[in-house]
Amino acid sequence: MVRGLSSRRSNARSAGGDEYERKRKAIVMAAAAVFREKGFAAANGDDIAKKAKMDRASLYYYYGGKQEIFRDMVGEAVTGNVLMAEQIAASADSAPNKLRRLIEGLFSSYAHHYPYLFVFVQEEMTRLTKDKSTWSITMKRLDRRFDDAVIKIIQNGLDDGSFNPGDARLMAVAIIGMCNWSHRWFDPSRGIEGAKIATAFSDLVLNGMVAKQA
Amino acid sequence: MVRGLSSRRSNARSAGGDEYERKRKAIVMAAAAVFREKGFAAANGDDIAKKAKMDRASLYYYYGGKQEIFRDMVGEAVTGNVLMAEQIAASADSAPNKLRRLIEGLFSSYAHHYPYLFVFVQEEMTRLTKDKSTWSITMKRLDRRFDDAVIKIIQNGLDDGSFNPGDARLMAVAIIGMCNWSHRWFDPSRGIEGAKIATAFSDLVLNGMVAKQA
Repeated sequence: MVRGLSSRRSNARSAGGDEYERKRKAIVMAAAAVFREKGFAAANGDDIAKKAKMDRASLYYYYGGKQEIFRDMVGEAVTGNVLMAEQIAASADSAPNKLRRLIEGLFSSYAHHYPYLFVFVQEEMTRLTKDKSTWSITMKRLDRRFDDAVIKIIQNGLDDGSFNPGDARLMAVAIIGMCNWSHRWFDPSRGIEGAKIATAFSDLVLNGMVAKQA
Repeated sequence: MVRGLSSRRSNARSAGGDEYERKRKAIVMAAAAVFREKGFAAANGDDIAKKAKMDRASLYYYYGGKQEIFRDMVGEAVTGNVLMAEQIAASADSAPNKLRRLIEGLFSSYAHHYPYLFVFVQEEMTRLTKDKSTWSITMKRLDRRFDDAVIKIIQNGLDDGSFNPGDARLMAVAIIGMCNWSHRWFDPSRGIEGAKIATAFSDLVLNGMVAKQA
């Protein structure tokens, strides 16, 4: 039966169609809400089916399990971040403003896609190099496109003299690391909010900590 | 036999003594070299015994396995970092210099303790909260002491006006994140060296990216 379901699922997926996409999207939204409420590890198929207002069998017609939903969700979240970074990089704003918008956008995304985007950053991101699945290859490409967009923003500021001379790639990993490390401590439901962290981090990297002499 | 060895090991450990400590240290040094050469996952007891110039049975008299050596090694590395941070925080230097020395010290430690310190940052650090072993509790305390030392350095600069106003804790997690994220990309055997990264990162957080107007 599992095999029958699985082949029906891939047929439905390749056939696609609006109704299929609509249902799939509804499941992803429901799963996101469940992951936010119960945490990723504790959530199960029953919770997700209940939240999506369908029975378990219907859910499994669309998805093989929690992990498959997770991958779709993370894929959409990371794609959104990459498109955001590329749009910011291509925009007409000044380099410092672009960097600030990027950091704000990232923390807004972390909060919106909490906690599954952080689960990805912690558990899956480092395994991408070893894993050869289509999903991993796609995610690796997205990761590189994100890095490239950040480097482009910084290079842009180096070229027009708005940034102090330096290595664009090193500055990029510094900023990306500063933001991504928040998967260890940022919880949008308590403590300081994402927008305030983004402002503090932007001020820190743009203006520096050392007080300017009067 | 395993049980017999294990109890002889704990007897030897609690009896302690100079000879025991000297041998244990030699094994830790040998294991560190093996982990650097072969990577943590590929290394095994035979490699470590060979490098320490002892047979496998003698090695197992001192250590139950790779994981136990790893924990001892990481414990020493992290203790070293905490003592360094606390000494810097307590020193008479200016706050910007202290922060620079801290970042330099961290990258020097990452390089010296590569790759097992990074294995810890990636794989074990997040599990400390759940795990109730003596080792985990010790590591959690060390982690907090490190954070506190960084916060103290920053608070010191805020108090004497050498740093721009801000939230000391947020600045601390920004800097710690920027440095710790290097476990995903820094390899002391190739690419840019630790000291250069430390300088670039210190310049970034102290002076900021935005070029000062003439």
